[in-house]
Amino acid sequence: MTKMVVTPWDVTGKIDYEKLIKEFGVKPIDEKLHARIVKLAGEDHHLLRRNIFFAHTNLDKILDALEKGEKVWLYTGRAPSGPVHLGHIVSWQFTKWLQDKLGLHLLFQIPDEEKFLFKEGMTFEQGQEWLTDNLKDIIAVGFDPKKTKIIIDTKHADLMYKTAVEIAKRTTASQAKALFGLKPEDNVGKYFYSCMQSVPAFLPTIMEGKPTQVLIPCAIDQDVHFRLTRDVAAKLGYPKPSTILCRFLPALTSDGKMSSSGENVIAMGDDAKSVRKKIMRYAFSGGKDTVEEHRKHGGDPDVDVAYQWLTFFEPDDRALKSIHDAYRSGTLLSGEMKQTLVDVLVPILEAHQQRKDEITEKDIQKFLIR
Amino acid sequence: MTKMVVTPWDVTGKIDYEKLIKEFGVKPIDEKLHARIVKLAGEDHHLLRRNIFFAHTNLDKILDALEKGEKVWLYTGRAPSGPVHLGHIVSWQFTKWLQDKLGLHLLFQIPDEEKFLFKEGMTFEQGQEWLTDNLKDIIAVGFDPKKTKIIIDTKHADLMYKTAVEIAKRTTASQAKALFGLKPEDNVGKYFYSCMQSVPAFLPTIMEGKPTQVLIPCAIDQDVHFRLTRDVAAKLGYPKPSTILCRFLPALTSDGKMSSSGENVIAMGDDAKSVRKKIMRYAFSGGKDTVEEHRKHGGDPDVDVAYQWLTFFEPDDRALKSIHDAYRSGTLLSGEMKQTLVDVLVPILEAHQQRKDEITEKDIQKFLIR
Repeated sequence: MTKMVVTPWDVTGKIDYEKLIKEFGVKPIDEKLHARIVKLAGEDHHLLRRNIFFAHTNLDKILDALEKGEKVWLYTGRAPSGPVHLGHIVSWQFTKWLQDKLGLHLLFQIPDEEKFLFKEGMTFEQGQEWLTDNLKDIIAVGFDPKKTKIIIDTKHADLMYKTAVEIAKRTTASQAKALFGLKPEDNVGKYFYSCMQSVPAFLPTIMEGKPTQVLIPCAIDQDVHFRLTRDVAAKLGYPKPSTILCRFLPALTSDGKMSSSGENVIAMGDDAKSVRKKIMRYAFSGGKDTVEEHRKHGGDPDVDVAYQWLTFFEPDDRALKSIHDAYRSGTLLSGEMKQTLVDVLVPILEAHQQRKDEITEKDIQKFLIR
Repeated sequence: MTKMVVTPWDVTGKIDYEKLIKEFGVKPIDEKLHARIVKLAGEDHHLLRRNIFFAHTNLDKILDALEKGEKVWLYTGRAPSGPVHLGHIVSWQFTKWLQDKLGLHLLFQIPDEEKFLFKEGMTFEQGQEWLTDNLKDIIAVGFDPKKTKIIIDTKHADLMYKTAVEIAKRTTASQAKALFGLKPEDNVGKYFYSCMQSVPAFLPTIMEGKPTQVLIPCAIDQDVHFRLTRDVAAKLGYPKPSTILCRFLPALTSDGKMSSSGENVIAMGDDAKSVRKKIMRYAFSGGKDTVEEHRKHGGDPDVDVAYQWLTFFEPDDRALKSIHDAYRSGTLLSGEMKQTLVDVLVPILEAHQQRKDEITEKDIQKFLIR
């Protein structure tokens, strides 16, 4: 088993989430916080209930503000460098739910320089080739066009650079090195980049003209950026942004997270046939070696990736439990578990693709901050 | 005598220009280059003739392009953090002459984040307070509004940031440390800043849609930025920018350069009375201790700051020579030398102030790149 590495640019190995909570200095989402969200939203969400969104920073401040009826912004993002896949959509669907249920505004950042700065050998243009495609995927999630602003780092740098510079002045090269593991031979863009990623955490306050709370739903690997943002917020007199953090959708082959740079990725554009093929072929199974053994001893849903994925994508608790129990008892075979996942994913993907196909250049313009 | 220090943010001590030429890897402007400029311009300029613009990089490439009738852009800049003074105007007047005589377009950068990033304790707003005032000083120099574009880093970052990021990817933190003497405890904005200063060297090629030569007139302390620009140009496939470099207008008290942060600065807004007072009081004299001795032995124009300033501001060679000889012979006293300088400067300042007073917000808008 490979060693656990969790940075914004690299997630590998068996993830120990308890350890990450301690290392990153974040907090678990406890029952009390969960209940407050449910009360405000008027309903529960399976990603909360199943502890997939499992950790946070300062979430209580967000809930305080919402309970007082104050305006709160959401902020999340996507660095284009390839197709959007199921791993991205998890957090965005939850973000949409927060927007819908809590009536929140959303700032969606496209740091179109990030991957270019951090990936050896990648050109800026290689990222730009995916820009429009990724924007359509984002919009296809169904965010409210009246309450969602997409901000693209290079296109809207005039709205960001001044604030990035304010952040940069309060961030030393030593801090950037320590937080992001940078080396002297790394490019200066890597040193500066996190300042750009901090900006949307402060833009709501700038746009609203008054201190405005911001909640950032994202995977836990991104929290390190916002640790820097929180440090600087105090120095600049902005509210510290809050995060609500999710686990990674596991790679089909089990370790680490599903990542665009890995193989066996299920992209949002994949058709039913290739989804079935990838899952059947690659999804790490918790089943026994033979049908006979499986029927006799049952499978292990806890290590079965198809089952783990169902915890992300099958919102019905009763359906999930019956799958779990049938697998455990040996009634449900490994291939059947995989087919169940295929049957859940294909409609999600097809509905997404249909929405995406209808999105025009004009729709994109409507979402852009300017 | 203090040690010579020449960085873009600090110039102190007795300046040894021969040593700087070697250290910075630039070249002296020889007779041949001088003659080519004169031929293209149709006239000579006293700042060239007197070797005040004394060094360069790749100037021959600019002259080649001009001789072939190719379009060449000028690029210079100003970081607002206080009033514009005579030290700034020297290089800008020469830039205007190049524009007028050679018909060149000019990109004038306002890196309004630079001083903020590099000056401890300075706020961004303290720089912005000087922005409009400095813009009026720049425009009052008389640049051609049809051929001059002013670009402000924070306002026009959307035109710059993408290219800055391209530059940043090719610049390591080690290089930035070595070139600019940065330390780990320096802020990350300092590491990134030079990438922004490089951008206008490439914008003409981007705007013209074809490789376009750029000539940067500036004081020699700025060349280090363009050393980085030249390194990166090759990697990005842009023409290397050329520089034409001037000496510093000496501080009135003799060592180093006149700088806004020093005392005894003559700002472009100073009135006749205060100019006279400062020069009489502070200008380091090359005269003798008593009138009698001076009459007998003569003064030393080479160390007399008033005389040195006249080499910058009195364009008439014959007038200058007669001042020089009269001082050397003892006919001209130190106070008279200073009065001669006052008589040269006051009309320059008053004409500048009159032009500046007439500049409106609308005029500024006409000069902005967008």
